[in-house]
Amino acid sequence: MKCWLTTLTAALSLNVAANDLILDHNLAYQLTESLTVEVGQRLAGSEADARAVAWAEQKFNQLGYDKVWTEPFNMQYWERGQASLTVSAPFKQSLVVTALGGSIATPVDGINAQVVMFDSLEQLKAAAPAQVKNKIVFINKGMGKDKLGSFYGAVVGARATGAIEAAKLGAKAIVIRSVGTSINRFAHTGMMRYSDEVERIPAAAISVPDALQLAKMLKLKPELSLQLNMQNKLPGTVTSYNVIAEITGSKYPEEIVLIGAHLDSWDEGTGALDDGAGVGIVMATAALLKQQARPERTVRVVLFGNEEGGLIGARAYAAKHAANLSNHVFASESDFGAGLIWRLDTGFGEKSLAFGRKLQEKLAPFGVTMGDNTASGGPDISVLKAQGVPVVSLQQDGTDYFDYHHTPNDTLDKIDPAKLQQNLQVWLTTITTIANSQIDLRK
Amino acid sequence: MKCWLTTLTAALSLNVAANDLILDHNLAYQLTESLTVEVGQRLAGSEADARAVAWAEQKFNQLGYDKVWTEPFNMQYWERGQASLTVSAPFKQSLVVTALGGSIATPVDGINAQVVMFDSLEQLKAAAPAQVKNKIVFINKGMGKDKLGSFYGAVVGARATGAIEAAKLGAKAIVIRSVGTSINRFAHTGMMRYSDEVERIPAAAISVPDALQLAKMLKLKPELSLQLNMQNKLPGTVTSYNVIAEITGSKYPEEIVLIGAHLDSWDEGTGALDDGAGVGIVMATAALLKQQARPERTVRVVLFGNEEGGLIGARAYAAKHAANLSNHVFASESDFGAGLIWRLDTGFGEKSLAFGRKLQEKLAPFGVTMGDNTASGGPDISVLKAQGVPVVSLQQDGTDYFDYHHTPNDTLDKIDPAKLQQNLQVWLTTITTIANSQIDLRK
Repeated sequence: MKCWLTTLTAALSLNVAANDLILDHNLAYQLTESLTVEVGQRLAGSEADARAVAWAEQKFNQLGYDKVWTEPFNMQYWERGQASLTVSAPFKQSLVVTALGGSIATPVDGINAQVVMFDSLEQLKAAAPAQVKNKIVFINKGMGKDKLGSFYGAVVGARATGAIEAAKLGAKAIVIRSVGTSINRFAHTGMMRYSDEVERIPAAAISVPDALQLAKMLKLKPELSLQLNMQNKLPGTVTSYNVIAEITGSKYPEEIVLIGAHLDSWDEGTGALDDGAGVGIVMATAALLKQQARPERTVRVVLFGNEEGGLIGARAYAAKHAANLSNHVFASESDFGAGLIWRLDTGFGEKSLAFGRKLQEKLAPFGVTMGDNTASGGPDISVLKAQGVPVVSLQQDGTDYFDYHHTPNDTLDKIDPAKLQQNLQVWLTTITTIANSQIDLRK
Repeated sequence: MKCWLTTLTAALSLNVAANDLILDHNLAYQLTESLTVEVGQRLAGSEADARAVAWAEQKFNQLGYDKVWTEPFNMQYWERGQASLTVSAPFKQSLVVTALGGSIATPVDGINAQVVMFDSLEQLKAAAPAQVKNKIVFINKGMGKDKLGSFYGAVVGARATGAIEAAKLGAKAIVIRSVGTSINRFAHTGMMRYSDEVERIPAAAISVPDALQLAKMLKLKPELSLQLNMQNKLPGTVTSYNVIAEITGSKYPEEIVLIGAHLDSWDEGTGALDDGAGVGIVMATAALLKQQARPERTVRVVLFGNEEGGLIGARAYAAKHAANLSNHVFASESDFGAGLIWRLDTGFGEKSLAFGRKLQEKLAPFGVTMGDNTASGGPDISVLKAQGVPVVSLQQDGTDYFDYHHTPNDTLDKIDPAKLQQNLQVWLTTITTIANSQIDLRK
């Protein structure tokens, strides 16, 4: 296990003076900028992740939070190596490829095998082993766009479990069309899984233009081969951290209003949309809340570690706080980019729906409509929701989110500061309302 | 010197049956698709360039051209190696970087030096040596957008001659903000030059988001260092080819109406916009012209080699044909992407301006307006224009051209087939008119 924290906190503290924060409505953007510029990518378990943890502690202190602490958890560290994918003669050329998170490496000399294309994970599952055996599977499924990102679910299965299904049929590797909505030539990474029942095979994604290109080649010459080489590493168990800070409640300090985001990011962009913006929004919300007036309930901000690896920090938080989750009167996460919030979804008990409606009325001036009562609260918060914690989802417009998500193109310049201000206003109104009420939102 | 041609022609001929061409108004797109899918990138002097030459010969023959031949020329071959650029502590992170074409390599261990930022090449030129000595120069100049791409000229100087100016002041290397108009995270390559008068230093470009990021870091900490590593190779002299084909004129076979594009491309995209589209347009134009009726003058299509390296094929063509350039009654090139043609610019003698106006009237139904009489004819054709050959520029809408130009994102999916059809119609009308006239367009 490694711990980079001690030395890095010292290194980072050099920059405090250069980057003072101003507690105004641009604070969410200031924080997002600071995190993405000064730390950049922060792959869970990496040296950069440790720098992000140090950054978060420092900023919480700078912002005047009453308590700031970290909670360690163990995780399996995965590190990207070089990756290349080449089409064989007669169309010899390189495609833009990225390893999926968690994928094993290929042998040092790579894997050279004929490719077999499927339109979807379902079509792969229905294939005969003879079609797939000793080949590289290529799943070429496109993704649609909407505000809620609801097409993600239909395509992400190939990323998550494609390697398992392909290996069952004897494939040597799997390459998927990127789970994304842009025709810019970026490959989209993200977590994949293995099963102990079947062999582990390397898994990668190619950009949408490269998927279109490969499909055209296969139409001309179905017996094409691919040469895949990826040198990812799985060094073992390391420690990462949830970073937690509180504004202590004036009247009901034991009642916790939890707001969260995740501090880790994938390693190819700077994680501005996923989830630097969320980090900025929730850190700014409680800081501005205290500036207005100390809330009656305690407002706790949790920056979860290793969300991308499978909600590892969120599960550690839920386990550690299992005994007092009944004190968590509310939870919500910002983790869907930096678009305008347009809908309030609740996950309340039936008796509190009227409260939800009144909350939405307060948010209406910011353009927020009423949604349904099936909110998850966000990826990390869904773990708490499963334990009975009431939640809301402040739904952001995610129409363009999957143009950038999990690609090298997720960078600060994709964020409109004005939209982040709207997010902050909506969060501040929401959390002010809940933290100064005595409402019991449970089912 | 290498020649890949003989073996590769045989390899390529396997695909003829799979990819038959249909002589219709979609022909330009069919050809662009075939070139970019079946060959892909075709860096001048590379094995892929030789495959592109073989592809072009084969397609000209398939299209029923009367004569097809190649003309060899020598060139200095430059090959990209791996490239990386890392910012030092406390903001340790990698930036998206690409070597500029022609740049030497760094030492194997790279160059580590403090960075000094300038807003423009002019600002660098005005700097004192003490500001620059032993540092890595960073030129951070943005680029505007318009139909004509007229902002290119104001920023490309830093790419072309930045290494010379930086070396004069003792810099160890130069990194420029990409010459491009997109905030997508692609670095823009392109040719750079050295001078025999000053030391050669490595030259690279970073993407626009990375340039914005680096500028923000420098504001926080002006004494940042960069670690640049590039392993480009300059293996020496190789042979490349112009590929030439003709439809022989029925009445004036010795009078040559030359239309061109360049066959080579940069190596990171598939060269769809630059200049696969141009190749498709001009190859299709003469093929459809012959299908309608044999022209009175000879129509010669020249696919120039190594345009990107500095019009090397165009200069070889002009040198080889110097004795009979007076027979070249007209020349024009398509090399500005795949946008709609919106303006006819001429480079005619004064006495032929009325002819130009009549030509524009024929093109007006396609949305083409009248421009001025200062046309270059296109990059390669400018070499012929300098020798007195009359030209036109069929100006394409290049508003988005520099979003993709010289980046990995220059791929087929960026081309709208309908717009390519309009291009083909305009070219066909223009060349039909000129090849069936006896007009002398010279100054």
